[in-house]
Order: sequence, then C-alpha cells, then structure tokens
Amino acid sequence: MSTLANVNLADFYRDLHEHPELSRQEHRTAGKAAEALASLGYEVTTGVGGTGVVALLRNGDGPTVMLRADMDALPIEEQTGLSYTSKVPGVMHACGHDMHVACLVGAAGKLLADKDSWAGTLMLVCQPAEETTEGARAMVADGLFERFGKPDIVLGQHVCPLPAGMIGYGTGPVMAGTDSVRVTLHGRGGHGSRPETTVDPVLMAANVVVRLQGIVAREVPPAETAVVTVGKLHAGTKDNIIPETAELDINMRTYTRQTRDLVHAAIERIVRAEAAASGAPKDPEFDWHDSAPVLVSDPGGTTRTVEAFTGRFGADKVMVMPVVTGSEDIGIFGDAAGVPTVFWFWGGLEFDVVVKAIQEGGVEALPSNHSPVFAPLVEPTLSTGVDALHVAALTWLGRPS
Amino acid sequence: MSTLANVNLADFYRDLHEHPELSRQEHRTAGKAAEALASLGYEVTTGVGGTGVVALLRNGDGPTVMLRADMDALPIEEQTGLSYTSKVPGVMHACGHDMHVACLVGAAGKLLADKDSWAGTLMLVCQPAEETTEGARAMVADGLFERFGKPDIVLGQHVCPLPAGMIGYGTGPVMAGTDSVRVTLHGRGGHGSRPETTVDPVLMAANVVVRLQGIVAREVPPAETAVVTVGKLHAGTKDNIIPETAELDINMRTYTRQTRDLVHAAIERIVRAEAAASGAPKDPEFDWHDSAPVLVSDPGGTTRTVEAFTGRFGADKVMVMPVVTGSEDIGIFGDAAGVPTVFWFWGGLEFDVVVKAIQEGGVEALPSNHSPVFAPLVEPTLSTGVDALHVAALTWLGRPS
Amino acid sequence: MSTLANVNLADFYRDLHEHPELSRQEHRTAGKAAEALASLGYEVTTGVGGTGVVALLRNGDGPTVMLRADMDALPIEEQTGLSYTSKVPGVMHACGHDMHVACLVGAAGKLLADKDSWAGTLMLVCQPAEETTEGARAMVADGLFERFGKPDIVLGQHVCPLPAGMIGYGTGPVMAGTDSVRVTLHGRGGHGSRPETTVDPVLMAANVVVRLQGIVAREVPPAETAVVTVGKLHAGTKDNIIPETAELDINMRTYTRQTRDLVHAAIERIVRAEAAASGAPKDPEFDWHDSAPVLVSDPGGTTRTVEAFTGRFGADKVMVMPVVTGSEDIGIFGDAAGVPTVFWFWGGLEFDVVVKAIQEGGVEALPSNHSPVFAPLVEPTLSTGVDALHVAALTWLGRPS
Amino acid sequence: MSTLANVNLADFYRDLHEHPELSRQEHRTAGKAAEALASLGYEVTTGVGGTGVVALLRNGDGPTVMLRADMDALPIEEQTGLSYTSKVPGVMHACGHDMHVACLVGAAGKLLADKDSWAGTLMLVCQPAEETTEGARAMVADGLFERFGKPDIVLGQHVCPLPAGMIGYGTGPVMAGTDSVRVTLHGRGGHGSRPETTVDPVLMAANVVVRLQGIVAREVPPAETAVVTVGKLHAGTKDNIIPETAELDINMRTYTRQTRDLVHAAIERIVRAEAAASGAPKDPEFDWHDSAPVLVSDPGGTTRTVEAFTGRFGADKVMVMPVVTGSEDIGIFGDAAGVPTVFWFWGGLEFDVVVKAIQEGGVEALPSNHSPVFAPLVEPTLSTGVDALHVAALTWLGRPS
Repeated sequence: MSTLANVNLADFYRDLHEHPELSRQEHRTAGKAAEALASLGYEVTTGVGGTGVVALLRNGDGPTVMLRADMDALPIEEQTGLSYTSKVPGVMHACGHDMHVACLVGAAGKLLADKDSWAGTLMLVCQPAEETTEGARAMVADGLFERFGKPDIVLGQHVCPLPAGMIGYGTGPVMAGTDSVRVTLHGRGGHGSRPETTVDPVLMAANVVVRLQGIVAREVPPAETAVVTVGKLHAGTKDNIIPETAELDINMRTYTRQTRDLVHAAIERIVRAEAAASGAPKDPEFDWHDSAPVLVSDPGGTTRTVEAFTGRFGADKVMVMPVVTGSEDIGIFGDAAGVPTVFWFWGGLEFDVVVKAIQEGGVEALPSNHSPVFAPLVEPTLSTGVDALHVAALTWLGRPS
Repeated sequence: MSTLANVNLADFYRDLHEHPELSRQEHRTAGKAAEALASLGYEVTTGVGGTGVVALLRNGDGPTVMLRADMDALPIEEQTGLSYTSKVPGVMHACGHDMHVACLVGAAGKLLADKDSWAGTLMLVCQPAEETTEGARAMVADGLFERFGKPDIVLGQHVCPLPAGMIGYGTGPVMAGTDSVRVTLHGRGGHGSRPETTVDPVLMAANVVVRLQGIVAREVPPAETAVVTVGKLHAGTKDNIIPETAELDINMRTYTRQTRDLVHAAIERIVRAEAAASGAPKDPEFDWHDSAPVLVSDPGGTTRTVEAFTGRFGADKVMVMPVVTGSEDIGIFGDAAGVPTVFWFWGGLEFDVVVKAIQEGGVEALPSNHSPVFAPLVEPTLSTGVDALHVAALTWLGRPS
Repeated sequence: MSTLANVNLADFYRDLHEHPELSRQEHRTAGKAAEALASLGYEVTTGVGGTGVVALLRNGDGPTVMLRADMDALPIEEQTGLSYTSKVPGVMHACGHDMHVACLVGAAGKLLADKDSWAGTLMLVCQPAEETTEGARAMVADGLFERFGKPDIVLGQHVCPLPAGMIGYGTGPVMAGTDSVRVTLHGRGGHGSRPETTVDPVLMAANVVVRLQGIVAREVPPAETAVVTVGKLHAGTKDNIIPETAELDINMRTYTRQTRDLVHAAIERIVRAEAAASGAPKDPEFDWHDSAPVLVSDPGGTTRTVEAFTGRFGADKVMVMPVVTGSEDIGIFGDAAGVPTVFWFWGGLEFDVVVKAIQEGGVEALPSNHSPVFAPLVEPTLSTGVDALHVAALTWLGRPS
Repeated sequence: MSTLANVNLADFYRDLHEHPELSRQEHRTAGKAAEALASLGYEVTTGVGGTGVVALLRNGDGPTVMLRADMDALPIEEQTGLSYTSKVPGVMHACGHDMHVACLVGAAGKLLADKDSWAGTLMLVCQPAEETTEGARAMVADGLFERFGKPDIVLGQHVCPLPAGMIGYGTGPVMAGTDSVRVTLHGRGGHGSRPETTVDPVLMAANVVVRLQGIVAREVPPAETAVVTVGKLHAGTKDNIIPETAELDINMRTYTRQTRDLVHAAIERIVRAEAAASGAPKDPEFDWHDSAPVLVSDPGGTTRTVEAFTGRFGADKVMVMPVVTGSEDIGIFGDAAGVPTVFWFWGGLEFDVVVKAIQEGGVEALPSNHSPVFAPLVEPTLSTGVDALHVAALTWLGRPS
C-alpha cells in the first residue's frame, strides 16, 4: 500500500490535523481512516456508535487483539503557527487524536506486512467522542462486541509531553475516573430586602460548596486519591433580587470503584441535606453526565507489554509514569468485554524542549495536551507510535501454527 | 400593723437581703413573707407549687387583682460591701427579688389600710424560681387558679438601674421569650489519623453553628427581633481522637409566638439536616428546657395603669423603655388565666450615679441586675415600689358600692 | 389655569402614564411638567442634574418649602389592560411616579390659587432617576441649592397599595437605606483535577456568603433592622475548570447611619479575611454603587404635618405604617440642605380590593408597586395626592403679614 | 553470660512487663537494661536525655551501627490476664517497648558472642519517652552524638500484630509525621441575648473547623496523604452566655516535609484569617507541641537490610507493609546524625489468631498496640526480634581485616 508508506503517513497525519472535527462530528476523519484501512484490505464497517469505524483482519486461529484510536478534536483556536495548522476556526487537534489515528493506520499496514509472523484476528477501532467520554459507551451500546466479536485484550496509547521516542507506563490505575454532575438547587425567589419570604438558593449553594470539602477531607481514606471540584456556580441576576435557583457544576476524580461510589453518594447526600437545612420547597436535581471509569492498565498485561517495548526500544526509552489526573474512556471497552485493557503513553516533544522546560519552568511549562500550542513532532513520534502498537499487538497475537 | 410601718419595712428588706435563697429553696423567704401577710390579716397559703405563697384579702364584690413578687436569689458572690450584705456564701439577691417581696408586703399593708376606698379581692402571690423560669409554671400546675380563683388582671414589677423614683414601661412586648435547648450530635469516634472510619461530630457541630446563623439573617423578618446563641460547644478530649458526640447548648430569644415557633422549628430542621449531611449514625437529640414566653404587657392595661402612675408620681417620673432582652415568667400567670398582664420597671439607683455612668461609660457601666455589686437604694426605692403596686392595684379594683 | 382643573389633571396623568421613560431619559415627562408649571406662572428651569426641573413661586417673606416629585418609570412590560396603558414596549409607570408628577402640578395650581393665604417661597422639584437612586444626588451636585436657594423643609409623598383616600405615615426611619456592592474575588485558576495548583475562588466565594450571615445574626443589634443579600454569585464556566475569579453582587439594607457603617465595614472585613483564609494571590475588589441613605421622616416635622392631614382628611383616614424595606433617595435633598425631610404615603386602591386581598391572600397579594398590574385609581388618588401636598405645604409656609 | 541465655531473656522480658513506667519515668527499666548491658561488658552510660541509656562495644575499625529500643509504657489498665501482668495500676506495656528492650539486650549478647565475625562499633541506645515523641529529641539535645560519636546508620524495630515470626517493612515513608497544636481563639464575651456587644468565639471556632477542611480537600496534592483533625473543641459554659474564648486541639498527619510545611502554614493562615473575619479583639494563640517527623526508612538501606532478612528468615517470612498512620520519633536520631534510618516491624501474634481475625472481623479486630489486651507471644517473638537486630547489625558492620 504505497499510500501508507511512512513518508505518506506523515501527510495523512497532517491532513487530519488540518481538518479537526468536534466530538460526534468526526465524519471526515472517520471516512479518511476507513478509506485507508479498506485500501489495505481490512474489512471495514463505519457508523458504529455514531461515527465509529471497525476494521477487521482475520489471520487464522488465535487471539483477537483490539487496537483503539480516538478521533475527535477540541473547541480550541490553534496557535501553533504550523504550516499544517487547523483550517477550522475554533477547532484544533490539541490532544493528539490525529496522531492516534495516523499511528493506527500505520500499524495496520505494518501488521499486514508481516502477517506471516502472527495468527489471530486484528480488530482496529476508531472511536468518536473521547473528549466527552461518550464514544466508547456509544460503540458498545451499538453492539460492537456482538457484531464484531469480543477481543482478548484491548490496547491503546496516548501521545503526551514526554520526549519523542520515549514510552511511559503505569501498572494498575493510570488515569482517573471522572464523573460530572450538574446540580440544580431550588429555593424561592423574592426581593432582596425581604429574605423571610424566600428560601435563599445562594446561601444554600454556598453551604453545599463548603460542606462538600468534607468528603475528601474526612470521608475518603487519606491514602486514597480523590478530588471534588465545583467548577461553576451560577445563581441570580442582580444584587437585590433573591433568585429561584442556583446551579452547580461539579466534577469528581477517583481511582477506585469503591471511592467513586463513596464520593458519588456523599455528594448526593450532602446536597440533599443542605437543601433540607434550607427548607427548600423542592428537591435538588442531579444531572450526572460525562462519566469515565478509572483507567486501569491491567498489571500483568502491562508488565508483559512493557517487556516487549523494552526489547524493541531499549530500557532507556521506557519509563514508569505517575498516575495522571486526566481521564480516558478506553477502559469502557475492556470492562464491557470483560478483558484486560493495556494503555501507555508516548512522547512527542523535542528532548531539548523538555530539558529546558524542566530547568526553567518545571514540566508545567511544557506545551501540553489541550494547549493551543500543543504540537508533537511528526517524527519520530509517528514512527514510535506505529512501532509501539505493532510490538504490543504482536505480543498478544498468536504464532502461526 | 406596726411591724410593717415603713421604717420596719426597710428592716424586713435588709433581712431578706442577708438571707438569699436559690431557686426552689426559698423556704425562709416564703416563711417571712407568709408570716408578715398573715399578721396583716390576709388569708395565707404556703407550699403552692413548691415554696410559693398565696395571700387573699376579700373585700366585697368587685374584680380580683393579682399582685406578684418573685423570691429567689442567684448563685453570685456578693461584692457590694453593704452592712446588710449576704450571709450566704456564693448566693446573693443580685436581681432585686428581695425588694419585690418587701414591696409586696408593704403594698399589702397600704391596701389594707385604705380598704374602704376599694372593693373586690386582692390576690398576692410570692413566686419561687423565677430565675430558672420554673416557678410560675409550677404554681399554675399546682392548681393556683382552681384553688384560689382566677384574677381579672395580673400586675408585677421589677427593680432596675433607672434612677430611684422613676417608673419605666413598655406597651406590648417588654421582655423576650427565651428557650434553651441542649443538642447532642451523634457521630462515630475513632483515631484522629483515620477519619474515614468515623463520622466526625466536631465538623458536624461546626456546620450546625455556621448554618444556624441563617435563621436570624434570612428567615426571621428583618424588622422582628430574634437571637440564636450557641453559648456552649463541647466535643472531644484530645487532638488525635475523634469523639463520638458533640454537645451544643443553644439559647433563643424572640418577641412573638410566631417568631418563636419559626426559630424553634428552624433550629431543629437545621440540626437534623446537618446530621444527615454528615451521615450521622443516629439522630440528634434535643433537650428543650428553661422556657419563658415573651412578656407582653397588655397595651390597653398598661396605658390605663401608666396614666395612674403619671397621676401619682408626675409625668416627669414615668418614661417609656425599650424592649428588654432579658426574660420573665410572670406572663405565664396571665396566659394561664386568660387575662391581661401589666408589668413595669422602677428605678433603684442614685440619680447622680446614672448621670455619671451615662456621661462616662454609657449605661452599660451601671451596676445592673445580676451584677455582684447590684445594690438598689433602700429609699426611695422601697416607697416607690410600694406606691406603684398600691396605685396600680387601685386602678383595677372596684369602687365600694 | 383651566388646563389644570381637576378633570384635566386626570388627562395630564393619563398622558404621562402612556409615555413612561426610563431613569435619566425623562425628557418628555420633564418637558410636560415644565410646560404646565410655566403656564401657571412658576419660574421654571429645566436640565438640572440631567432632566430635572425646578419651579419657583416667590410669594413674599417667609419660609421656603420644597415639594418633590420623581419622574422615572421602570423596565417592566405593562399588563394592566388600562385604556391608557403604556405605549412604550417594555417600559411602564409601575411605581406611580406619573401620579407623583401630576399631583405636584395639581398642587402647584392649588397653592397658586390661594396664594393670598400664605407667604414664603414654593420650590417645586421634578427629579429624574429615583429608581437608580441617582437623581437626587445629581440635582444636588448640579448646584440645586446654590442656584435656587435652600428650603426650610423638604416634602414628598409616594402612592402605595393603601385604600385610595388613606394617608400612611411613619416618624423617624420610614424607608431603608440601601447600598450595593460588586465584589470580585481573585483566585488562581487551573484544571479541576489539580486543585493544589490553584486558589479556588468558588470555595472562597462560598465561604464569604456563609460568613456574611453572621453580620445580621451576631453583629447588628437584635432590635435593629438590617438585611445583607447576596443576590448574584457567578463563578466559572465548566465543572472541571477551576476559574480565576468569582463575582458576588451584594445588597444591604439598613435603617440608621450607625448600622449602615457597621454593615458596610463588616462586609469588607469578612470578604478580605476570607480571601486571606484562601491565600488569595490578589486582594478582592469592591465596587460600591447604587446607594441611598435611610429615609428619615423628621419626627417633629412629621407629627406637625400629620396633625394637618388629620384636620383635612379626618383621623380615620390617617394611619401609622410600619417601616418599608424599599428605598428612596428624597432624603438626599434634606441631608444636603441640612433641613428636615417629611415623607408620607397615600393609597391608590379600591377599598374592597384591599379588604378582599387581606381576607383571601394577605396584603402580599395586592397589586403592589413594581408589579406589571399596578394601577392606582385615578380618583380619588389624584385629588388626595394634590390635597396632601397642598395642606402639607401650607403647614410649613408662613402667614401673610 | 548465663543471665542472658534465651530462657532467661524471657524472664527479663516478663519482669519489664510487670513493671511498666510512664514516659520520662523509666528509671527501673533503664537500670535493668544498663545492668544487663554492663554485665555483658558493654561500656554503659545512663541518664542521657533523662533516663536514656547508651552502651558501646568497640570492636576494631569499621562502621558504627546504632541499635535503638524505646522503654516507656502507657497509661492503660492492663486486661490481658497474663501471669506476668502489670503490677502498676493504670500503667501497661501496651505498645511492646518491653519487648524492644529485651530484644536489644538479647542482640547485644548475640553480637558479643560472634564478635570475631565483624568489625566496627556497636552503639546501643535505650530511649525514654517515645510515646510523647520527646525522648529522641532529648537524647540528641543532651549531646548523644557529640559524647558517643555519630553512627553510620540507625536501626530500629517495632513489634506489631503480624503473625509471630514475620517481618514487615516499607521503603521510604513508613509512619506519618505528626504535629499537634492547641489554638486559643479570643472573642469578647457577653450575655447571650446581646451578641452585638460581643465577638462570638463559638462562631469563630465553627468557621475555623469548617474552613480547615479545605486544606486536605484543595491545598494538599490529591495523591499526597494528609489528615487534619480537630479532636477537641471546647467553648463556653452555658447556653445564654457568650464566652470569651474557644479552644481547639488540632492534630495533623503528613508524609513529606513539604506537605507538613504546607499544612502547618495553612492551619495558621486560616485560623488567623477567621479571627480577622470575626473582628477578634486579640490574635489567636498557637501552642504547637508533640511533633514527630515522618519516619522514612531509607530506601537503599531498607532494601539491603531486607535482603539479609530474607536470607535469614526465608522469603515467605518477609512482607511489604502499607504506610502506617501512627508516628515514631526514631527518625529524629538519623536526621540529627545526618545518616539513614532503617526501621521494620515484626509480628507477635499466633498465626491462627491473625487468620481468624481476618476471617471474622478484619484486622481491626486484632489485639493491636495500645489495646489493653495487647499481648505478644513471648516466643517466637523474642527470638525473632533478637535475630532481626542481629542480622541487621551484621549487614551494616564491617568485616574483620
């Protein structure tokens, strides 16, 4: 497939980067990926769970290995100044999902090329709407595993601000579970000078925010990691009018199912109780949305995969990474299929840039994911991402009999 | 009755002052009062509602007028340096109830002396335990009105830091209603380093205190007067042990039945809700005690009585007073009998002392009730108090036919 | 002046009602008032403090009496269904200032008609922007008293939901002082999963709101009236982004200068301290705006004026009113001139409507000021308002020598 | 040394157990230890930092290895029912320090016996007052290292509710740092009905408690472990008296110096700011006491020591333990000398007891340290503790040249 020689994979990547699409609108991206995978000879289905793409390569008896890439971009105005900068105003591939898709297509070609060396089934998945944590769930709900079979393992990767050529990994929890809730508190409005005729939702909301601090401070075991953030609190329109309602947008991050359940329940318990303390005329409402479970990179699976990475890239290119507070929804695939997920990170920055950032401003100064200047090097990032998927897949596929 | 000539009434007063008795232990005081009233010819009953005394003088057809004095002293070490200072260590007539009893006895004599000028029934009541707001309720519960008849009006007075010779009055609410409650919050104790195994009652109690502020700030109409004070908060024994419980002693002051009910309900609502917010393993407990209703000096009755005072003492000796935040239980008599209560204050301080205090330190610098140096002048305080009761009683008694 | 016969005054009123103008835009209203007053022979100046009008009638030696009416309407869509309903979409005379202007013009005619019976100077003032508490201050700042002389008294009135024909009054504080402040709290923003890199302004704001409750609950004397309302609290845009700032719009109502100062200082003290408690990187900002002092109707002046009302309307038409929690800026005139202000209310509703409202839904069910169905009866409201200004003015003008 | 044959070491242990002494009163215990060590030929000094004992054995050129045992007992009434139960009412060796001393003496004998196999200096330290975290600091302050030389490593151990024969260890932080502070908040007292004359310290304290929750919830990095507990809050005496002060006893637990400094500073910042928010008439007071740093078992040193344990006891007898929330002051020695500390735990319970507890009630049901029924088996606990010190010491001592 000449169109997928490495030199052209870079063009494929740059084209995706120029045409970013927001979550659930990844029509062009999905089309390009489907076209490339089909041209390679993969059995391609589109429109799975919205714009999702599934590409199968059946290569004799053996395990089924799922490789997943996510496709969506972000509502950010690109400021990289790259020659292949976004052509869509206000939308940008600031999280590197274009790189994920390109590497998946590259790995698809590479695994096809040496298909004599392995046996089993490759199941490549391009997922929509990772940023809103909707896409994995949507594909599962659309019958992904019933229609295309269950894999024995789910593999995925994320480009990040490590030096290009480096692989980072964790065993066990690697990214936080996240849950978002919009809480609507109901008071009773009135004139600001007559509070006695009202139930003040501003005071109710303030007490909720104050009270929520006790969850992390007193209820979560001190050695557990959890965050409860009220990122938005809106109530009222004018200083002397007591409003009817207050709205809080709350995000929680946890690293175990048990802590997640504890925090989830505590938020609802506290909000309800504070509404009761205010004598609210109506129960508060909870709109839970945008949930992703903690991403657990299966310990055994990760160890085995990392050994393969070490063999391919050298021990000096593979490093342990601390838990990341961001979230990912790839775990939903493994959970739904009842199989392990293995997930790793790989770097996209110039080594010197990383060193300079550490020396001068700390790693926080690096152009990180979700930044308007996030711009991974095309190479060696692309090759490393292709190779990582390739070696990881081979680790879990069977050998030809 | 030579024993009750004015010169001797002063001795009677000084004797009471030397022998103060705490609430519900007013045996000697009650005995002295009973003895004096009986010697005058009143029909005396003792032991009503504990140590209470009732003395009747039936003088033909006409209204029944009840005059009430309270008898108990306070657990305060007297520091007046008076020649007739308290002989009981740690106990003192610091609220002037000795003066009240003496004036009642003086008025009994004076009303007897001119009994040709009026008709009806005098019902003199010496009440125990006003300081703990128990005495009036106890006498009513002991059948006061069933056994001795219902009065047509209840009259009472209190000595205060006005200049001696002055009368102060209010129409309507004159003293606050008071209610006290001990709240016990139940958490779950444990080691200070393992809060997740506990339900922290210290945090629960703190949130209760903070939340209670909203009652006066947002729930009570701004023009209404109310106070909610957490005077005592005790929880725990050591910095690194999370205790099982927390105890709050709360006092509320209100001036209408409606506000009282509102505040009472709001306290319970908030405490219960905060316990729920903490996930308390057990409901909080409320021990309501020491309650006295707002003292309403009947407006019509007060106006009529004050006109009589003005006639007797001169308009320059009678003044309107603002509402007093202290409490009194005399209102329980009027409420129970379904008749008006009229209540007034009269002064016991030297005029110059009052003027000096106002000039130098504000009225708060005056030796006030409940102070260890509270020391009303014997005269003209005694004569004024006797005269006030005399003229007030005559106002409400009938005329001989 | 036939144009100001009562029948025509009603037309004058209806015309104003049909053409409401928002604060500081009262050009047509001011023009109509100026025209009418000039046609009567008053010495008229327009454009004082914006759209303000001053009309003088010098009538020999004697006191100067200022009568004031306000002119502005409200941004409310009228729903009265009256034949003379507002012709300006979204703007309505919902507070009766049209009635105030019409009565001032009516009184101007009436006082002119019997100018032989009094001596002194009439100073009629039509004020802009009462609703935003800007107009009185603007006229004073524009040299009102320097240019037109200082009055000996300032008189004003407000139509309200009493039965038409009734006068209501208070002595001393009659309407609240109001002060508004926008508080901007500065935190440090960041990702919702990394609170340790931020200073959370949402938590800071919540603690401010909670803490402010202590001002009314613990710092203002219980018998004083005060309100602190946080009517608006806006912070953040999304659940998982910790914002940089939070904005609170706070309104306070007080009834004495001393309490105003106390509450003002307490708000700033608490906000600053809570910012410090959070470790805020920058001091909070306070933008105080929209202030009106407590409106004190001079006690002596009110008593004298009310006696005159009683003589004119009968004792059964004059009643004491409780303090109103709304605010007025007329007091700024008296304060600036150093003379008493006397202010009263008069009714505009059918007697039966008021009775029915009391019986069925409480007075709160009445179509009150600022309601889209506020519609005072033209008569006897207009005549009563004219008469009240007339008799009040005569009370304070001199007698011809 | 027949007195220290194993059979007699058990008697030595039982004697210590029968005669427990509270912190800083370890006179008998220190005497017994000194006597035993001197009888072995060690160069013994007593009275170091109070009741501390230092015993030296110089055995040629080589490293100096310090072995430390703590000596104090607890104010707990023993309920073990052992034949050698405490003879001191209300005092008990409930934390196993008697076992620590006995094992040190046993290891002293064993290391002496095979002194041909090693070279260097043994420095045995019996420390007072570990329970109050005063003893290590006192010995250092008394010139421990100036007078007796600096060791190259500090070794220590603690008996715990693992099965007897087991060793438990951690690398890096193994026990929390602890700091205690008594905070006195100054308000202004007064009558409960007149809050405006006061600065309410109960409300101030409540706001402090509520506000402190934000430290762990928002300021400490989520992946760090920290606890802030207000274990005691006492204010006031009666519901209707607003007190002058409130007292909070706060304990904090942290695992890094950086977090410790952050939490320490945040507590003071918040307390001061809340006092300012209340308008406190006087600054709050902080009495910091009872501090122990986080105990870090040097990672390299621990790994090397644990390898030696594995060689001696077998890999199945050596296990990793999670971080313990309790605290220890042994780290003060290593910190003061600028050398690594290596610390481990060893078990004292019957294997079946542990299994049963896990099956029936969780490990929390085990008779743990500080329990009145804490009773480690004499054997094999004693032998294992002696052997562990012996093998650990040999790991760090030199070889004879």
